[in-house]
Amino acid sequence: MYSIDLNSDMGESFGAYKLGGDEEIIKYVTTANVACGWHAGDPMVMDKIVKMAKERGVVVGAHPGYPDLMGFGRRKMVLSFQEVKNYVRYQIGALADFTQSCGMKLNHVAPHGAMGNQCQYDEEIAAAIVEAVAEFDKDLIIYYCAGAVLGDIAESKGLRTASEIFADRAYMDDLSLVPRKMEGSMITDEETAIARCVRMIKEGKVTSLNGKELDIKGDTLCVHGDGPKALAFVQRIRDTFAKEGIEIKHL
Amino acid sequence: MYSIDLNSDMGESFGAYKLGGDEEIIKYVTTANVACGWHAGDPMVMDKIVKMAKERGVVVGAHPGYPDLMGFGRRKMVLSFQEVKNYVRYQIGALADFTQSCGMKLNHVAPHGAMGNQCQYDEEIAAAIVEAVAEFDKDLIIYYCAGAVLGDIAESKGLRTASEIFADRAYMDDLSLVPRKMEGSMITDEETAIARCVRMIKEGKVTSLNGKELDIKGDTLCVHGDGPKALAFVQRIRDTFAKEGIEIKHL
Amino acid sequence: MYSIDLNSDMGESFGAYKLGGDEEIIKYVTTANVACGWHAGDPMVMDKIVKMAKERGVVVGAHPGYPDLMGFGRRKMVLSFQEVKNYVRYQIGALADFTQSCGMKLNHVAPHGAMGNQCQYDEEIAAAIVEAVAEFDKDLIIYYCAGAVLGDIAESKGLRTASEIFADRAYMDDLSLVPRKMEGSMITDEETAIARCVRMIKEGKVTSLNGKELDIKGDTLCVHGDGPKALAFVQRIRDTFAKEGIEIKHL
Amino acid sequence: MYSIDLNSDMGESFGAYKLGGDEEIIKYVTTANVACGWHAGDPMVMDKIVKMAKERGVVVGAHPGYPDLMGFGRRKMVLSFQEVKNYVRYQIGALADFTQSCGMKLNHVAPHGAMGNQCQYDEEIAAAIVEAVAEFDKDLIIYYCAGAVLGDIAESKGLRTASEIFADRAYMDDLSLVPRKMEGSMITDEETAIARCVRMIKEGKVTSLNGKELDIKGDTLCVHGDGPKALAFVQRIRDTFAKEGIEIKHL
Repeated sequence: MYSIDLNSDMGESFGAYKLGGDEEIIKYVTTANVACGWHAGDPMVMDKIVKMAKERGVVVGAHPGYPDLMGFGRRKMVLSFQEVKNYVRYQIGALADFTQSCGMKLNHVAPHGAMGNQCQYDEEIAAAIVEAVAEFDKDLIIYYCAGAVLGDIAESKGLRTASEIFADRAYMDDLSLVPRKMEGSMITDEETAIARCVRMIKEGKVTSLNGKELDIKGDTLCVHGDGPKALAFVQRIRDTFAKEGIEIKHL
Repeated sequence: MYSIDLNSDMGESFGAYKLGGDEEIIKYVTTANVACGWHAGDPMVMDKIVKMAKERGVVVGAHPGYPDLMGFGRRKMVLSFQEVKNYVRYQIGALADFTQSCGMKLNHVAPHGAMGNQCQYDEEIAAAIVEAVAEFDKDLIIYYCAGAVLGDIAESKGLRTASEIFADRAYMDDLSLVPRKMEGSMITDEETAIARCVRMIKEGKVTSLNGKELDIKGDTLCVHGDGPKALAFVQRIRDTFAKEGIEIKHL
Repeated sequence: MYSIDLNSDMGESFGAYKLGGDEEIIKYVTTANVACGWHAGDPMVMDKIVKMAKERGVVVGAHPGYPDLMGFGRRKMVLSFQEVKNYVRYQIGALADFTQSCGMKLNHVAPHGAMGNQCQYDEEIAAAIVEAVAEFDKDLIIYYCAGAVLGDIAESKGLRTASEIFADRAYMDDLSLVPRKMEGSMITDEETAIARCVRMIKEGKVTSLNGKELDIKGDTLCVHGDGPKALAFVQRIRDTFAKEGIEIKHL
Repeated sequence: MYSIDLNSDMGESFGAYKLGGDEEIIKYVTTANVACGWHAGDPMVMDKIVKMAKERGVVVGAHPGYPDLMGFGRRKMVLSFQEVKNYVRYQIGALADFTQSCGMKLNHVAPHGAMGNQCQYDEEIAAAIVEAVAEFDKDLIIYYCAGAVLGDIAESKGLRTASEIFADRAYMDDLSLVPRKMEGSMITDEETAIARCVRMIKEGKVTSLNGKELDIKGDTLCVHGDGPKALAFVQRIRDTFAKEGIEIKHL
């Protein structure tokens, strides 16, 4: 029997600014990565999304990012080990109050944007995140992009991990995501995208942009909820998984 | 036997900006109110101060404030009940990660600046803080300025409280602090200041600016560590308390 | 011959966050009030909107607000005269670089949100804004809500002013806007709203919520561009003004 | 006859946070590089320092930095050309309001911290700054660290430039400053430091850390005012320059 977690980034609105369709996508996923007020999100948004998740039986993880609201945490910043470690624990703690206050437990930590990207190869950044998590709560799962050094370091420290895969993104030969600016970065054909997902989950294989066969581990699949088209695509993924005998459940 | 807690606001530095003499004052107090990154403080500062407190056996509480770094949280902002509640829980949670990560437990919550001042009479603000604390951890103590409605509301919700008194500030007839801009707001004579403290602690009495005798409850005394003069004053308080049989210990 | 300026708040997006339909509403108005990065907007957004305005022949004014991005500048903050004055000049100057850099001149200053609301009666806030504007550039027009003390103070200092009226808002007996939370605050019937505008412009009269006839001066009419319905309403206003002989032109 | 400008970074305080000794160092310099509220400074501080400069006959330039108050603008951020260009113009404009409002003219632009460091070799960042300055006001002087590509690009666009040298810093063979973490980065002997300055100004030569003789152009010398020792050093520089026939005057 195969199984997969469906996660989505949520709680990225800020003040008067609305971003994403949290109210809709939450109906389709098992796990929410919740922004913690640095690259996106604010305490009002965090409160709302955590309560929505509780009501829906969706588990909640922290989605910490760089202190760069203007850049949505997508711009690389050169920070020290201690800075990353302390910034991550600040954000995890902040969100953990909201989950604890409504009787939930934080499930995992998934670094956002530029911080997440740097975890593909940067051992120092990855180790900083792992230490922050391990010192706070050893039961938290570390979400990492398939192939990232973050996964190795988390496991070496005895933490539980989840390898994240993407339905709509192409892979380089080293399992890093094809940068969005490169041609072929997005898998635009839905049929193809879903077939790739099924293969990643059942066979642990994916074909890179260059046509190379790669081993890949898929514990959790990232989906988006921006607009009716995205929601329809997620529904289609769910339907296919049901037919393929892939159970959707959180980690 | 009389006893009193000595508290000081700490961790108010930010990035390259240093404020206060945390390294010194921490030697004299039993309790640290630690800024949580909104009106002051940042994760690097929080990490440092929490570790210093642990080493010294000083207990740590959260010192949440308004989202106004430029105004150091001293400017009144008109926020809703939900905004105050969520802002306070965000800040408490953030700090709680740092205490938990080094094996300490958060001790209390003491609202800062304009937020603290509004708790003298504003029942909505006070109730928002109390709910935020109660939902997160019912063991946290609420620090309130002697006479503030915050104390009453916290007690009505079954929370533990501590009434805070000041050595260097004069009181109005309603126990509110004489505003800094008014003449006579500061007790500048050290002898007088200390004698007032002893009387507040032992007799539960203080004389207002207008000469009225007031009942006052003193569980914790706020002291400052800015500069050698302030430190000498705290030492003098400690010496006098020793002679007067007032034990200094945290709550 | 009657004439009116049509203004709209623009440039309120921030980083990844989009707000309002600037690209559409700019086709219908003569004047843009551009957010300056404090309550909304950022330098990328400011650059874009100023260039769009230039292309369309729309004049640009500064729309300064409180340092409260999380509250979109709508929450009252208690600031000193000097703080308001310096905050306003910072924001005006920042925007003036963008206009100057593409060969335009700043046209006016229109305070936003809570700052704007306080200008109805608060002479200190109003005077701070007027001084900031007058010291920077005496040719800038001060936009004020009809009836606001800001208009009087600006005129007493020799500045040009524009009295702003609203198509969709009801008025109290003192010409202040009926608070949004009160029943009847919005003029929801389009026919009525447009007829009120025509009467304000041609007769200088409006009927308050309580049925009282008030004198009102309308130099500029505020319109919104959020969504197709709002745009259709603006077009209807334009059509009616054309029939009524009210010329639409900037100040 | 030789001459040199003496500049110092100023206005780096923020809200309740005081940094540097602006009130003292301003007595010794001819030029102030004023922080613009992003990496440091705020409108109250900018207002104060500009007025102080006017009173002292010190000229004022903008010292723009990255949007990173927590890191004091010293941490590298990966920004696009347009982002740097717009961020710089926002900051220049903001400061220009304060100078214009008190009858002064902005003199120059000197990028701060990580932004300044990147201008040593990064042609894109340098070009973004140059375009921002050129489009706003072609009379502004670009301050660049001796040897930086920023100087070349500014000159190629027809802007005036000033090559900045440092009394207390050692140089690599390519004229970049020896990183602070490397041994020998600081010239700690005052006698040596001053002799190096005189040689840079009179002979246009400096010896690198590796002992290589380098050509260097010195139009402006950067000095610091943190504490009595720094001020005494500046006074000693001034005395030596007087004896050596080096006139101190702004550009």
